[in-house]
Amino acid sequence: MQTKKIIKDSYPGSEKIYLPGKIHDIRVGMRKVKLTDTVKIVEGKRVATPNGHVYIYDTSGAYTDPNIEVDLKKGLPRLREAWIKQRADVEQLPEISSEYGKQRLSDSSLDSLRFEHIQLPYRAKKGKQITQMYYARQGIITPEMEYVAIRENLQNEELGIPSHITPEFVRDEVAAGRAIIPANINHPEAEPMIIGRNFLVKLNTNIGNSSMSSSIEEEVEKAVWSCRWGGDTLMDLSTGANIHETREWIIRNCPVPVGTVPIYQALEKVDGDVKKLSWEIYRDTLIEQCEQGVDYFTIHAGVLKAHAKLVGERLTGIVSRGGSIMTQWCQLFNQENFLYTRFDEICDILAAYDVAVSLGDGMRPGSIHDANDEAQFLELDVLGELTQKAWNHNVQVIIEGPGHVPMQKIKINMERQLSSCMEAPFYTLGPLTTDIAPGYDHITSAIGAAQIAWYGTAMICYVTPKEHLGLPNREDVRNGVIAYKIAAHAADLAKGHPGAQVRDDALSKARFDFRWKDQFNLSLDPERALEYYRESSKNDEDYCTMCGPNFCAMRITHNIKECEHQNS
Amino acid sequence: MQTKKIIKDSYPGSEKIYLPGKIHDIRVGMRKVKLTDTVKIVEGKRVATPNGHVYIYDTSGAYTDPNIEVDLKKGLPRLREAWIKQRADVEQLPEISSEYGKQRLSDSSLDSLRFEHIQLPYRAKKGKQITQMYYARQGIITPEMEYVAIRENLQNEELGIPSHITPEFVRDEVAAGRAIIPANINHPEAEPMIIGRNFLVKLNTNIGNSSMSSSIEEEVEKAVWSCRWGGDTLMDLSTGANIHETREWIIRNCPVPVGTVPIYQALEKVDGDVKKLSWEIYRDTLIEQCEQGVDYFTIHAGVLKAHAKLVGERLTGIVSRGGSIMTQWCQLFNQENFLYTRFDEICDILAAYDVAVSLGDGMRPGSIHDANDEAQFLELDVLGELTQKAWNHNVQVIIEGPGHVPMQKIKINMERQLSSCMEAPFYTLGPLTTDIAPGYDHITSAIGAAQIAWYGTAMICYVTPKEHLGLPNREDVRNGVIAYKIAAHAADLAKGHPGAQVRDDALSKARFDFRWKDQFNLSLDPERALEYYRESSKNDEDYCTMCGPNFCAMRITHNIKECEHQNS
Repeated sequence: MQTKKIIKDSYPGSEKIYLPGKIHDIRVGMRKVKLTDTVKIVEGKRVATPNGHVYIYDTSGAYTDPNIEVDLKKGLPRLREAWIKQRADVEQLPEISSEYGKQRLSDSSLDSLRFEHIQLPYRAKKGKQITQMYYARQGIITPEMEYVAIRENLQNEELGIPSHITPEFVRDEVAAGRAIIPANINHPEAEPMIIGRNFLVKLNTNIGNSSMSSSIEEEVEKAVWSCRWGGDTLMDLSTGANIHETREWIIRNCPVPVGTVPIYQALEKVDGDVKKLSWEIYRDTLIEQCEQGVDYFTIHAGVLKAHAKLVGERLTGIVSRGGSIMTQWCQLFNQENFLYTRFDEICDILAAYDVAVSLGDGMRPGSIHDANDEAQFLELDVLGELTQKAWNHNVQVIIEGPGHVPMQKIKINMERQLSSCMEAPFYTLGPLTTDIAPGYDHITSAIGAAQIAWYGTAMICYVTPKEHLGLPNREDVRNGVIAYKIAAHAADLAKGHPGAQVRDDALSKARFDFRWKDQFNLSLDPERALEYYRESSKNDEDYCTMCGPNFCAMRITHNIKECEHQNS
Repeated sequence: MQTKKIIKDSYPGSEKIYLPGKIHDIRVGMRKVKLTDTVKIVEGKRVATPNGHVYIYDTSGAYTDPNIEVDLKKGLPRLREAWIKQRADVEQLPEISSEYGKQRLSDSSLDSLRFEHIQLPYRAKKGKQITQMYYARQGIITPEMEYVAIRENLQNEELGIPSHITPEFVRDEVAAGRAIIPANINHPEAEPMIIGRNFLVKLNTNIGNSSMSSSIEEEVEKAVWSCRWGGDTLMDLSTGANIHETREWIIRNCPVPVGTVPIYQALEKVDGDVKKLSWEIYRDTLIEQCEQGVDYFTIHAGVLKAHAKLVGERLTGIVSRGGSIMTQWCQLFNQENFLYTRFDEICDILAAYDVAVSLGDGMRPGSIHDANDEAQFLELDVLGELTQKAWNHNVQVIIEGPGHVPMQKIKINMERQLSSCMEAPFYTLGPLTTDIAPGYDHITSAIGAAQIAWYGTAMICYVTPKEHLGLPNREDVRNGVIAYKIAAHAADLAKGHPGAQVRDDALSKARFDFRWKDQFNLSLDPERALEYYRESSKNDEDYCTMCGPNFCAMRITHNIKECEHQNS
């Protein structure tokens, strides 16, 4: 495992800072962008006015803290471990519980691939409830809840904006099921974050090898890389070789919650043969992954046997991998989906580790033609039923959504989800607003993602330019994340999240002042902005090459203001 | 002038076809994408089902017709010249009318830069009205009107979708001022197109050198290049050297309408010194450009002297170049904007050549902070007043709009424009939905452009990744155009334009059938899609590298359908 390509350096002009808790002994990492002064010449004299610093929500974890030496071989610091132990409701197991996990551990041929410092897993003590939802329902404010409250406020008190997100509000939203804090007790390295429509819009990134390509090293690199650009959670969708070992590396080094689709690995275990899939194999896979530290599972429990016939009406059938696997299984065995029939047992397992469930939309539309059809909406009703079941076990729930949806059908999708699923957070892939742009689906879908997030979707799953064509490389991941940061932030502005506009205003003021470096440092991708600027300009001038000196509207406006000033 | 880099080859899998008129002797160029058969194995036998061809709106003009030899030195065929002459209401002038034009023509030092085959200009005969709006109001269906009617229907009759866009409908929309056909009699090379909210959403691209960079050759190349990718109109925003000669080259070789901002050239003529700007210089510039063949002028006639004081409330002042120039002029001379006071005279000039006016929004917001403020909306009311004046002269009008607007403020912008400007077509720059992503403003703005176009904007002005940073190169133009083709098409789908979804459905069916080449040929950028696909795959397989063979949902769906079929 080489570390040379992992990004460790901070963003330019930025400082990693930590804000303390008031209830708990916690430190919340943020990025502080330090701005230069606005300089004006007034009556021949240079007058400098300082500009307030801007605090930015930071998903990059310890990687951007110059005081922490990150060693991928050892994994990130175990931030939450003390909080978890302090609650005294979990126990460290003497060995891992899953058969498959044991088998892999005892296979010495895998030693060279294996993460060296595997810890024994934690699990709830018998009879104990340990999920964030359970605590919230008991009126308890956990360190995780206070952490996200501080994080969501973006240090706005300093700017005169009241802290509208209180720890109590976080607790109440989690208790009501309107928000989740994905926080497996076996992934203490992750910094707490919250997914809910009354909070900042979050974005998920996907990585994962397939049988065709990618190495462990590449996947860990992509994980860190996507966090650096702003990914709030990370799904490992690997379907190739050594999934178990790859996942261990990723989780140990990932500062954000990690999700998976366990049916993928279950199918790998039976060599891709759906006929050999069984509840027993799936169950062992769940336990294996719970104990590694996966924070949320996509589970396609809403795909019912009876729904298969609806697929015939579609242009593009089923495009969810999990949905197609389970539909085929139902058909082959002429039985109901075991993820549906065993859902209570699944919840019991998840509750013991505080793993959240992301109810998969196996019937999500794969084309404009199939959007908002009966197959999609019937499944949504089933997901509502399952949401209530999970909540009965204190399991945190999010609901996955489309897919491909034209703009005029996006709002109804959101409204149906809220009513069918009792306001459980919605987590959508895009949606793509047209099918005709393979190679640019980060854009077709950012258009839909911005809208659906504005209407109330809590987390949007990124799409890279390679969607429909192949697996993304590093540059594709960067482009996908930035497109989705844009969509999420545009939605935060539209929803009126207090403090979201602080960054826009600071950047625009820097632009108007010709403080180019401040403008770039405040942007989502400072390196790209600087690169494009340098392609055209040699110096920091009071104009850019776009308009040239005589046609720079902003420079002329400064003259106009100067003149107004003299006339008044 | 080299032609080697100009794109002449057709899109893959496509054929240039021409549809005949029924009223007039016209041929409307379209692109026909020829699809392969869907092949299935039924009971061991290969069964092929043909797929209907798809017709695509084509902005590439003669460049993609293998039967036409385009020579940039001679310019494109003069498609509309016969139609114009047949109306017998224009005359060819014995010499060009503008002083500046004469001066440039007589300067032999410019011979090497000059287009060789300059024609003498046409102008309306004394007392004659010759605009498309005038004809429409008389109940006349011109060849231009029939041309756009055929073009807008996308050959849907063949697909069983009735031709909802009739020549009569086009005429009525133009007569009402709800749509324009920019068609200067001195730009007969352009293929007629229509801008109005009851038609396909159009997109404008900007090119132009500044004092800092670019050559004539580069600009002509970019013009042709942007048309190839789907630009519907082209604005030449040059502010550097040899504007006059560059424009001649562009217009003679441009198959789409060309717009300019005449104040830019007027300011160049006085060496960038606003104090030397005058109505006389501006008037001569208008005539110069009318006779070269510019199809529409952006005129910042709504920027009033009294509005300057509103700028002080703003974070980013005035970001429109024309707006800032005119504001400064008002201030320097303590007089009202001459574009406003002379607006009737301007309309008289424009009417004699059928040049449309695009009323510039000098007060468009340059940041999220400044969106929908008093300065912007007061100007919009003035633009409404000017619209009525232009219509009194039978001059076609479009209205320019923002800028930077957060999502929740976009709809009110559209509604204000429709009511203030009596439904004259809206033509917006973006809007950008956040300020924080320099380097990615094609995406921040495609999000806003898709929305505002859905709400009723008739034409969207593209933004490239270099916005705010520098002048776009060829690749930036391509990325900007494709982002805006996506926004425009997403809006066409959302508005329910009959036939828009035909292309989505055909592409999605190709995707589901694993007809990769058809999928790529139907896409907005076949080259890019193929390039990304090839990065991962070696062959045409029944899956891509994204999921691999065991996890391809579409392949599994085929199995499911097969199984359903056998069971029934």
